Amino acid sequence: MASNGNSHVSTKPPPEPSPLRKAKFFQANMRILVTGGAGFIGSHLVDKLMQNEKNEVIVVDNYFTGSKDNLKQWIGHPRFELIRHDVTEPLLIEVDQIYHLACPASPIFYKYNPVKTIKTNVIGTLNMLGLAKRTGARILLTSTSEVYGDPLMHPQDETYWGNVNPIGVRSCYDEGKRVAETLMFDYHRQHGIEIRIARIFNTYGPRMNIDDGRVVSNFIAQAIRDEPLTVQLPGTQTRSFCYVSDMVDGLMRLMDGDNTGPINIGNPGEFTMLELAENVKELINPEVKIITVENTPDDPRQRKPDITKAKELLGWEPKVKLRDGLPLMEEDFRGRLGISRKK
Amino acid sequence: MASNGNSHVSTKPPPEPSPLRKAKFFQANMRILVTGGAGFIGSHLVDKLMQNEKNEVIVVDNYFTGSKDNLKQWIGHPRFELIRHDVTEPLLIEVDQIYHLACPASPIFYKYNPVKTIKTNVIGTLNMLGLAKRTGARILLTSTSEVYGDPLMHPQDETYWGNVNPIGVRSCYDEGKRVAETLMFDYHRQHGIEIRIARIFNTYGPRMNIDDGRVVSNFIAQAIRDEPLTVQLPGTQTRSFCYVSDMVDGLMRLMDGDNTGPINIGNPGEFTMLELAENVKELINPEVKIITVENTPDDPRQRKPDITKAKELLGWEPKVKLRDGLPLMEEDFRGRLGISRKK
Repeated sequence: MASNGNSHVSTKPPPEPSPLRKAKFFQANMRILVTGGAGFIGSHLVDKLMQNEKNEVIVVDNYFTGSKDNLKQWIGHPRFELIRHDVTEPLLIEVDQIYHLACPASPIFYKYNPVKTIKTNVIGTLNMLGLAKRTGARILLTSTSEVYGDPLMHPQDETYWGNVNPIGVRSCYDEGKRVAETLMFDYHRQHGIEIRIARIFNTYGPRMNIDDGRVVSNFIAQAIRDEPLTVQLPGTQTRSFCYVSDMVDGLMRLMDGDNTGPINIGNPGEFTMLELAENVKELINPEVKIITVENTPDDPRQRKPDITKAKELLGWEPKVKLRDGLPLMEEDFRGRLGISRKK
Repeated sequence: MASNGNSHVSTKPPPEPSPLRKAKFFQANMRILVTGGAGFIGSHLVDKLMQNEKNEVIVVDNYFTGSKDNLKQWIGHPRFELIRHDVTEPLLIEVDQIYHLACPASPIFYKYNPVKTIKTNVIGTLNMLGLAKRTGARILLTSTSEVYGDPLMHPQDETYWGNVNPIGVRSCYDEGKRVAETLMFDYHRQHGIEIRIARIFNTYGPRMNIDDGRVVSNFIAQAIRDEPLTVQLPGTQTRSFCYVSDMVDGLMRLMDGDNTGPINIGNPGEFTMLELAENVKELINPEVKIITVENTPDDPRQRKPDITKAKELLGWEPKVKLRDGLPLMEEDFRGRLGISRKK
C-alpha cells in the first residue's frame, strides 16, 4: 500500500491477470459433475461429454455398483478428474452443471441395503441440490420409470402420478426417487435452482453389470456361456429397451434445453420376453435352448414410456434398434467374460 | 483390588447395588419419548401417558408449531422432561418407547419451508430409527391420510397405495411421510426394529393452532369472534373429524399391541362443510351468518378412513361425537382468544 505520490497510471502496462483469472483463462468453458459417473449410463455420458474439448468433467462415485474400468480411457486426462466420494456426504467443489445419476438401479443392488438406498436418494440429492444452490449450477436428476410403480395407465405420460407401494421391498428405490423429485421441485420453487428431471426407462448396452439380474444382461451372458436362455413365465410379458447412446443423447438434450421436466426418456418399442430371447439366440448363439422358468414374485410389470414430450420439447427419439444394439453389448460382454465367438 | 487373602464372602452383607442399578431401581418402569410432544396431538398424548405413574415422559420439540403452553401442567414434574431439540439432528438419550409425531401437519405450516418439511420427515425419522436401533426401543410413527393423496378408492383401507402427485406444492408432506413409512419398514426388515405405523386422519380438539387454516379451527374462531362462518363452495364436500382423546387412545393401543400397521386411525363419520358450519353456529354462536366463499385451488379432497383394521386388531373405534367435542374446543379457544361467552 506504500505510494510515492506520483501518479503514473497511464504509462503503466495493463495489469497482469490475477492468479484466479489466469487459472480461469486456461480452464474449460464448462465444468460438469457426473455423480455415479463410473456406472453404466454415467460412464457413457462421460465419454460423450469428454468429446467436447470445452468440457472439464468431474466424476464422483463410491464404486458400489460403478467401476473404474468404465472410465479407464479418461484416467489421467487433463480435462478429467475422478473422485471417490459417497454423495450422502456433502461435496465442496466448483461446477457449472451437475448430472446427478448416483444410485444403485438394479433391484438386486438397491435392495441389498434399502436404508442406504433411501439415504442415497434423499440425502444424496439434498447434498447435490445444496451444491447447485451454492455454485448456481444447473442440476439434472435421473429419476426413473419406477416412480410410476405398477401403473394403471398405459403407456405412462409425465402427468401420471403413479401407483406405488410405500412399504414394500422395492419402495426404497421407488419412494426414494419420488421424494428426490419432490426435493428438486422444492429447491426450484424455494431457491430458484435450475432443475432438470429425466424419468429414465430400461436401458441396455456395453458396461452393464453382467450379474445385475436384468433380463438383457441375463440372456446375453447365458448365450455367451452356452447356457439355456431362461424366460420367466408366461414369456408374453413385454419390456422396452433403450440403447445407452440414445439415453445419453436424451439426457444431454434435456440438460441443455429449457424444460425442467419431468420428461420420460426411454424406448417405447415393446418386445415380449420370448421375442427378446429369440433375438438374442439368433444374433449371439443360435445353438442355445430357450427354456421357461417360474416368475419371481417381485417382478416389475409392464411399463412403456409415452415420449411425446421428449419428441416435442427435446426433438429426441431413440434411434438404435434392438438388433443393432445387442451385438454391441455382446462384444463388450465377451471381452469381460473372456469368451470369444466360435468361428 | 487389594486383598488380604482371607475369604469371608459368606459373612459379608449382600453387595450394595451399583449406582447404575440403584438409579434404575428408582426409575419409572417405562421411559417414553414423544417427539413433537408440545404440539396439539402430542401434548394430549403426554397428558395421557403421565397419568400412569410408572411412566417417565421425555418430550422433544423445536416449537415450530408446538408450544410450551400445551405442557405447562407438567413442567417441573419429576417424571417429565422437556428438551428443545430439532429431530433433524441426532438425539442421544435412553428410552423404551418412541412416539414419533414431530412434523408440521397443517398445509400453511408444512408449505412454509418445504425442504425443511422433507428433512423433518426423512432425516428426523432416520434419527429416531437410529435411536430405536441403539436402545432397542419400540417406535411408533404418526403417518397420515395424506399418503393416500387424492384417493381413487373410497373409503381408504390400508392396502390402498394412494394417488399422490410427486412434484406438487403439497408433496413435501405427502411424499415425505410416504418415505418415512418406507424407512420404518426397511429398518424393521433390515434391523428387526419394533415398528408401529398409524395413518392418522383429521383430528380436532383443544390446543389446535387457532390460525392453522383448518376448517374446524376457522369456524370456531369465527363464531367466537362474531365473524361470519366462511364455507368454501360448493359446501357439500365432506370431511371426517376425530376428537383428540379418541386419537390418543388409538395411538396408545397401537403402540402397546402386537401389530406393526400401518393402521388407519380416524373417524369415519362424514359431515358436509355446511353441516359443520350449522353445528358450530348452533352450539357456539347462533347469531353468526354462514356465507360461502371461493374454494382454494389446493384444497384437499374428500378422505374417509376404513377403520376395520383398527376395530379388529386394536379393539378401537372413536367414541366422542362432533356435537360433544366442539364445545370442549370452544372453551379452549375462548380462553386463548380472551373472549367469554355472552350471557
